[in-house]
Amino acid sequence: MRATLMYEAGDVRIENVPDSVIKHPTDALVRITASCICGSDLWPYGSMTRADGPARMGHEFIGIVEDTGSEVTTVKRGDLVVAPFAISDNTCAFCREGLHTSCSHAQANFWDGQAEAVRVPLADGTLVKLPVAADSALIPSLLTLSDVLGTGYHAAVAGQVNERTRVTVIGDGAVGLMAVLSAKRLGAEQIVLMGRHQGRTDLGLEFGATDVVSARGEEGIEQVRELTGGHGTHVVLEAVGNMPAYQQALGVVRPGGVISRVGVPQYEEAPIGFGSLFRHNLRLAGGPAPVRAYIEELMPDILNGTIEPGKVFDATTNLDGVPAGYQDMADRKSLKVLVNP
Amino acid sequence: MRATLMYEAGDVRIENVPDSVIKHPTDALVRITASCICGSDLWPYGSMTRADGPARMGHEFIGIVEDTGSEVTTVKRGDLVVAPFAISDNTCAFCREGLHTSCSHAQANFWDGQAEAVRVPLADGTLVKLPVAADSALIPSLLTLSDVLGTGYHAAVAGQVNERTRVTVIGDGAVGLMAVLSAKRLGAEQIVLMGRHQGRTDLGLEFGATDVVSARGEEGIEQVRELTGGHGTHVVLEAVGNMPAYQQALGVVRPGGVISRVGVPQYEEAPIGFGSLFRHNLRLAGGPAPVRAYIEELMPDILNGTIEPGKVFDATTNLDGVPAGYQDMADRKSLKVLVNP
Repeated sequence: MRATLMYEAGDVRIENVPDSVIKHPTDALVRITASCICGSDLWPYGSMTRADGPARMGHEFIGIVEDTGSEVTTVKRGDLVVAPFAISDNTCAFCREGLHTSCSHAQANFWDGQAEAVRVPLADGTLVKLPVAADSALIPSLLTLSDVLGTGYHAAVAGQVNERTRVTVIGDGAVGLMAVLSAKRLGAEQIVLMGRHQGRTDLGLEFGATDVVSARGEEGIEQVRELTGGHGTHVVLEAVGNMPAYQQALGVVRPGGVISRVGVPQYEEAPIGFGSLFRHNLRLAGGPAPVRAYIEELMPDILNGTIEPGKVFDATTNLDGVPAGYQDMADRKSLKVLVNP
Repeated sequence: MRATLMYEAGDVRIENVPDSVIKHPTDALVRITASCICGSDLWPYGSMTRADGPARMGHEFIGIVEDTGSEVTTVKRGDLVVAPFAISDNTCAFCREGLHTSCSHAQANFWDGQAEAVRVPLADGTLVKLPVAADSALIPSLLTLSDVLGTGYHAAVAGQVNERTRVTVIGDGAVGLMAVLSAKRLGAEQIVLMGRHQGRTDLGLEFGATDVVSARGEEGIEQVRELTGGHGTHVVLEAVGNMPAYQQALGVVRPGGVISRVGVPQYEEAPIGFGSLFRHNLRLAGGPAPVRAYIEELMPDILNGTIEPGKVFDATTNLDGVPAGYQDMADRKSLKVLVNP
């Protein structure tokens, strides 16, 4: 079968790899009908060394179950399913608390789906059946349940957004826009979107942003403070992951407020001492989103049309077009690329 | 009047300074009857340079109101009062949220009380009247309302301790022991105290610790994990403030858990990236405790004998004994020194 491999920064290829097969009785084999390229894939696309490649890419997909191991009970051949980006058993202590990304099962992991088919470990815990056909117009929105919608929603949940909170969202990528939509869904009083690509921030306004700040750094911080009575916002949803984004978050968060990070940090050390987090009791939250925990909660809103997260896809390609899709996303020509293998 | 001045590390002197006087109509003048030396005073006692001195020291006291400005209404001459370590108006948006340490009033500040008398700005917001006499046996416990009890309690509140949480307390100083007492008060299921001074950890057991781990570093982390089913505790109350304590907190916190810091960080940068906080959705909370917010809640427990936080005082001296008191605390000969000027 064909799959996506990254050899090093800027070098993505579609190659033949051994067919996926069932290995464990808890596995399912899924023929992928829709997948996509993630903003987080752009970090290795910008920095991966040849020594770390080639790596199988992709972790968001919808597909049709082709086969199941003998112990799989919740999905069967022919079911259309969505997979969260993390494999989990959905039964351990952490999964029961909604922290599927810390599932304690030995086979729990993150993974790779820009391919024709994929072996899904812990199928019962991981896969969720979709009540539509593979050619439904809702597929793009349902595909966001595999990562970006759940990730934006996790940012808002971890940031404890409610109807009394003012929120800043840092980043106008797909996750940032999903964070806007999620903050709106949780009733945020004000949602300031920091981003400088007008096509994207316009979509952010459609998703519920009340203000857009295109300036960055000190100027951007100053503008957010002006919009929020001088104090900044109770919650900052940080959907980028680099140090300038973290510094910006420190600049716009209100005393006692929380910075909720879902952009994978591209740094290990950062300021958290008296002069940054401590002095005003600022809190830090977030991490890899346990999107499995949110699928049942969010899917009805998609099925009944309340939210249309699929609007983040502004390009569609097939497997052959994946390398160009990476480059278009890296060049900010595409917001998010849907892949129909 | 006489007051405590620190000239540099290791050099604390009692000297004559100009008498405190009322300056603003919202001030009160308080004759101090009981104050104490704080663990946080030991950081400058260990590192302050001569260029930063001399500095007035002390920020915890009980005293008798000697005079009040024309606008003060809640306390009057002759009242016995306790002062939290931060000056606040108790009316601004942040104070109303319980975040008195971020009070937005221009006169809000931290301050100095190892002296004979002190001018208290924003007396109405800052001072709380005590319903006992200055020679009450409850004075040591009531004095802890000015800082250490409220600080330990803030750690537990910011860490969201409840009856379903397991807690590790890092540090067997006065604040760590108050954190134990506070976690117990909030119903924690298990309280592991990490400390290596048996006299102190014995007091911790009396305050509610269920386990004591005297080992530090990797060995200490391993022991806490063994005591908690391998995963660590939901909450870590970090009551030291240095980098080894932070690293220890990272080692014993459970996935999805929270590190609540009240030890003033002696570092600015620290690991918070994928490999430390992010991977398992660990959260960071805490800061300077808004102890003013907790005085009314905690005082009844002291008055009716439910808690005896004053047991942390294991030495009493007068102003002349303050320099030796600093040295005794630095040498770990004394846990916490009470000062009757």
